[in-house]
Amino acid sequence: MCQLLGMNCNVPTDICFSFAGFRARGGLTDHHRDGWGIAFFEGAGVRAFLDPNPSADSPVAELVRHYPIHSLNVIAHIRKATQGDVGLENTHPFQRELWGRYWIFAHNGNLKGFAPALSGRFQPVGTTDSELAFCCILDRLAQRFPRGTHDTAELHAALRELALEIGGLGEFNFLLSDGDRLFAHCSSRLCYIVRKAPFPVAHLADEDVTVDFNQVTTPRDRVAVIATTPLTDNEAWTQIPPGNLFAFHDGEPVAMAKTRTVAQDYPRRNMSDA
Amino acid sequence: MCQLLGMNCNVPTDICFSFAGFRARGGLTDHHRDGWGIAFFEGAGVRAFLDPNPSADSPVAELVRHYPIHSLNVIAHIRKATQGDVGLENTHPFQRELWGRYWIFAHNGNLKGFAPALSGRFQPVGTTDSELAFCCILDRLAQRFPRGTHDTAELHAALRELALEIGGLGEFNFLLSDGDRLFAHCSSRLCYIVRKAPFPVAHLADEDVTVDFNQVTTPRDRVAVIATTPLTDNEAWTQIPPGNLFAFHDGEPVAMAKTRTVAQDYPRRNMSDA
Repeated sequence: MCQLLGMNCNVPTDICFSFAGFRARGGLTDHHRDGWGIAFFEGAGVRAFLDPNPSADSPVAELVRHYPIHSLNVIAHIRKATQGDVGLENTHPFQRELWGRYWIFAHNGNLKGFAPALSGRFQPVGTTDSELAFCCILDRLAQRFPRGTHDTAELHAALRELALEIGGLGEFNFLLSDGDRLFAHCSSRLCYIVRKAPFPVAHLADEDVTVDFNQVTTPRDRVAVIATTPLTDNEAWTQIPPGNLFAFHDGEPVAMAKTRTVAQDYPRRNMSDA
Repeated sequence: MCQLLGMNCNVPTDICFSFAGFRARGGLTDHHRDGWGIAFFEGAGVRAFLDPNPSADSPVAELVRHYPIHSLNVIAHIRKATQGDVGLENTHPFQRELWGRYWIFAHNGNLKGFAPALSGRFQPVGTTDSELAFCCILDRLAQRFPRGTHDTAELHAALRELALEIGGLGEFNFLLSDGDRLFAHCSSRLCYIVRKAPFPVAHLADEDVTVDFNQVTTPRDRVAVIATTPLTDNEAWTQIPPGNLFAFHDGEPVAMAKTRTVAQDYPRRNMSDA
C-alpha cells in the first residue's frame, strides 16, 4: 500500500511541515521503500522531484524537506511496489501535458486485469497499473473534450465516470491535478484537513515536530492537506467516504459526488454535509 | 544567449564535474540568470530538476553538483530569456512523452515569427519559442511515424528535415533525447568532446577544479560531452559545423549530415572525418 499526500491552497504555500512527516513513512516509520516523488505546480509550470530510493534517507528528500517551494497544488507519493519493478520510470507522480497544461497523477492501490484500449496519444513509459490508469484518464478526456473547451463541472463529471469505471477493477485512491484543481478520489483510504484562521498548533504523527501555523500564515490563508492517513496526531482529519471524488480549489473541497451514482454536481453550499 | 550542456555515455556516468563549471555560467562567470534545468535519463525514466532562479546560487543546483546521478543521457540548460517571461513554465529542458518514451529538449537561440500549425496533440504550456519548436517537432514525428515503427536512420533524417525547416527562422541550437540517442543540432555554436581511455586530467574553464578521469572510470568507458562553448581549458573540443545534426550514442557521434543538403546518412566509419 502506497502513501499519498496532496496540498491545495488559496495562496502559494510550502509543504515542508507535512512533507517532514510524510517522508518518514518511506522507510522509517513505515515500510514504503520503493521510491518516492513530489510535484509542485508553480504558475503553469511543474517541478517534480523523483527518486527510486527510499525517502527516509534520500538527499533529494532532504532538499525538499528544507527548501520552501511555494505552490497552490502539490502531489506526493511514497511507493510500496505492487505492479512494476522498482525504478525511476515507475516512480509516482507521473506527468503529461494535455490542452497546454501539465497534469500530475499519483495512485495508491492495485488494479487487477486492467488493460484499457488506448488511442496511442498517451502511453505508459513504465510498467505500473497506475501510469496506465493515468494515460487512460487523459486519453478519454482528450477524446471527450478535444479542444479543452469544457467547464469545471463537466470535467469533474467526466473524471467521476472514469474513476467509477477504473475503480471497478480494484483499489483506486488517486490524486490528480492540472494546476487549477486537485482531484482526490477515495476508494478505500484518503482523508483531508482544511487549515484556516484561527490556525492550529499542529504536531506530526510520524516525527516529533510541532508548527504553530499562526506564525507562518496570514488570516486569509486556507490550506487543504490530503493524505492516505492523518499526518498529525492532534487535529481532526475528515475521511473522504469511499466512492467519492472531491475537487479541491482555493484550499477547500468545492464539489463532491458519489462515483457510484449517476453523475451530478453538488453545489458548494452542501459541503457541510461532508 | 542561453547555454546548453549534454552528455551521452556508453555506461551510466555522473555529470558532477561538467555541471560544476556549467552552473557557474548561471550568474557567476556569465550572465544567464533567468533559470536553469537539467534532466537525467535513468533507464526509461527521467529525473528533471528545474529552477527559475539563477543556477549559481540555487540550492537545487548545489544538490545536483554533489549528488552523483548516473545516466546515459543528460541535457542541461541555463537561460538568458529572449522570448517568454522568467518562470518555471518557461524553464528548459522541456519534457513530453511520445511512443511510450520520454523526450527531453533544450534550445539555445531565437526563432522569429515562428507560428507553426499544430494538431493539438503537443501544446506549449509556457510562452517560449523553444517549447513551441519542441511541440512542433514531436507533432510532426507523431504524424510521420504514427506507431513509432521506424529505424534510427529514418528518425535522424526526419529530425534533420525539421531542424532545417525550423532553423530557417533563426538561431536553433538544440539538444534532444529520447533516452536512446542524444541529438545535437548546431546552427551557430555547439561543440563536443569524446573522453575515452587514456583519459585526460581535465581542468574546468569556469572554476578552478581538476579531475583525473583515470581515477573514476574504467578503460572501456566512453563519454561525449556537448556544450555551447568548451567547459575545460586544457582539452581540444570539436566544433559541430553549423547546419549539422549529430546523433550521439554510446558516447560518440554515430552519424552526421548537413541539414542544408538532401537527407542522407553517413556510415559510422566516416566519423573520423568529423
